[in-house]
Amino acid sequence: MSRYGKRADLIVHEHEPFNAETGLAALAEGALTPTDAFYVRAHGAVPHIDPARWRLRVGGAVERELRLSLETLREAFRERELTATLQCAGNRRAGLMAIRDIPGEAPWGPGATGTATWSGVALGDVLALAGPRPDASHAAFEGADLCPEARPAQRFAGSIPLDKACRPEVLLAWAMNGRPLAPVHGAPLRVVVPGYIGARSVKWLERVELRPTPSEGYFQHVAYRLLPADGRPGPGAGMPLGLVALNADVLAPADGDSVDAGPVEVRGYAFAGGERHVARVDVSVDGGRRWAQAELLDDLGPWAWRQWRITLDLAPGDHEIVIRAWDSSAATQPEDEAALWNPKGYVNNARPRIRVRATTAEQTQESGRCSS
Amino acid sequence: MSRYGKRADLIVHEHEPFNAETGLAALAEGALTPTDAFYVRAHGAVPHIDPARWRLRVGGAVERELRLSLETLREAFRERELTATLQCAGNRRAGLMAIRDIPGEAPWGPGATGTATWSGVALGDVLALAGPRPDASHAAFEGADLCPEARPAQRFAGSIPLDKACRPEVLLAWAMNGRPLAPVHGAPLRVVVPGYIGARSVKWLERVELRPTPSEGYFQHVAYRLLPADGRPGPGAGMPLGLVALNADVLAPADGDSVDAGPVEVRGYAFAGGERHVARVDVSVDGGRRWAQAELLDDLGPWAWRQWRITLDLAPGDHEIVIRAWDSSAATQPEDEAALWNPKGYVNNARPRIRVRATTAEQTQESGRCSS
Repeated sequence: MSRYGKRADLIVHEHEPFNAETGLAALAEGALTPTDAFYVRAHGAVPHIDPARWRLRVGGAVERELRLSLETLREAFRERELTATLQCAGNRRAGLMAIRDIPGEAPWGPGATGTATWSGVALGDVLALAGPRPDASHAAFEGADLCPEARPAQRFAGSIPLDKACRPEVLLAWAMNGRPLAPVHGAPLRVVVPGYIGARSVKWLERVELRPTPSEGYFQHVAYRLLPADGRPGPGAGMPLGLVALNADVLAPADGDSVDAGPVEVRGYAFAGGERHVARVDVSVDGGRRWAQAELLDDLGPWAWRQWRITLDLAPGDHEIVIRAWDSSAATQPEDEAALWNPKGYVNNARPRIRVRATTAEQTQESGRCSS
Repeated sequence: MSRYGKRADLIVHEHEPFNAETGLAALAEGALTPTDAFYVRAHGAVPHIDPARWRLRVGGAVERELRLSLETLREAFRERELTATLQCAGNRRAGLMAIRDIPGEAPWGPGATGTATWSGVALGDVLALAGPRPDASHAAFEGADLCPEARPAQRFAGSIPLDKACRPEVLLAWAMNGRPLAPVHGAPLRVVVPGYIGARSVKWLERVELRPTPSEGYFQHVAYRLLPADGRPGPGAGMPLGLVALNADVLAPADGDSVDAGPVEVRGYAFAGGERHVARVDVSVDGGRRWAQAELLDDLGPWAWRQWRITLDLAPGDHEIVIRAWDSSAATQPEDEAALWNPKGYVNNARPRIRVRATTAEQTQESGRCSS
């Protein structure tokens, strides 16, 4: 058992603040990611919050400021539950770092994402009680976690457009996979913004502010922005991230694995982001000349990824397997990882590739003999 | 002057039914496409409709069936105006046909798209009067045009999800660019579904039907579906098209042009589709190793493309210029046109490439002498 009740097979990138991703094997266990294997992305230490004294403040461009206890949230609003995938904007950054280093950023593999069932109330119901004023266009969220990487240190914060904030899928969640939210995942209350980068699902939520403009905090105005390859991070530089871009990766076999020649099951995930869904996943073993369609597994609703699988017949030898997902706009992923490199290493959604060596029993024995 | 009041520089692919695309020069005139240059995609002859006798019928899964004259639509609902880009799902098919022929389909270039201002009423306001029943999930539209390519011939039809149909941007439009809708563009009334493929903006609208499932008509259930490269068109085969995928193309210079070496202005359009917007357009002259950012021109609102321009400094010689647009999810276009080939030739949104020859005055004179 790792820290915070996490399984030992998490890949820990940083101990303080705690940053750890789910291993491929744990992701492949099923479409719902177990809480004890779910990734954690934090910019500050887990804050100590007394739930009895905690209040959610709602202010800014509202008709009526609110100050709500957990009890009031539970009693005054309809409880909702939904299944949603969260994905860090830095998911698969390791692929970009292999091309050119990105100092100061964690080398996330494909496990900075996961899918859980979230319970709480709709943010929109709470905002309706507050009454957005006509000049309100964005909802900004502020957590209790102090983040030293913004200098001077800032509480983690971020915003989403008010139109999205009022849609029924945006939750103020107090439970994850049917259990009370763990401290490391934002207890007592976090935002869950389905279809948006994980950074907008602010943990340890303390304040919601309606504003005419997006948050001017560090994590919206400086970080979590996509720069051109030759760009320099700075206030307002680059495009703000929000909607998750179509992405996919392979969960099994692992890159570099040896497998038995013959039928080989390949599994992975695909996530469309935004309001889109995964429409198709293609797999090629000949460098993209011909593509076969993978089977899409459990449909957990409009806000969740789709896991997929396909059985390939692999002749003995080395193979490169390439994947491309398609979303409901019939858009697919870009090919070239190198051309996606950017100074902060966000949004690597290039088509994933793995290399496997297919061997026969004979070869395995031979190789066994050679190494003995 | 061409047929239907269209300019002579339209590129006519078919005379009956009339199918014609806008020339690059006309698209490059500005962000709003003049009506007399706007593309036309039809599957049947322009029907003769007497506006005085015409009625819109609204039925299916509704509390109250409606039968509305144009006068009632004008008097009973709030008039709305918005600027929206329409784009045919077959736009840029010519690029796919250059790879492998697609018999029976028109070789659309990049001009099967255009942007206009549309006026009418919100479909959602009309649907609110009809009252969607709980089993209503899709809104199907039927035009008056009989289309022989469905055998037996069918009226053109298609559907969109009810959630989209109720959003305020979906119009029942009677005017285009401030003038009454022309017969060739759907008079007296057409649907305009911003962010969706043009086929859902049904012209010569006569009936709206709320349904539990998508339209089962030919143009939703057989055509306008994306097949794998080795797929066969058939009822329900392939993924239904709806949201437009991120796309872009170059409007000037034209592919194969000779230009003066030195500063060369390159112009084009980019369209994000769905609810996304164009966040950046990159231009490369070295095969995608380095990218410069184009200037995004007039912002005509959330439902319109962005035209863009960049000045490149081209040394004498041959150049290939590659473009990639990015949408607000930080997704960009796929590279390889060949890998997008599909049996019906839809959704070619590969990064556009043009080749130009930059010449000096000396070279031009020499070449002039040679050919004289």
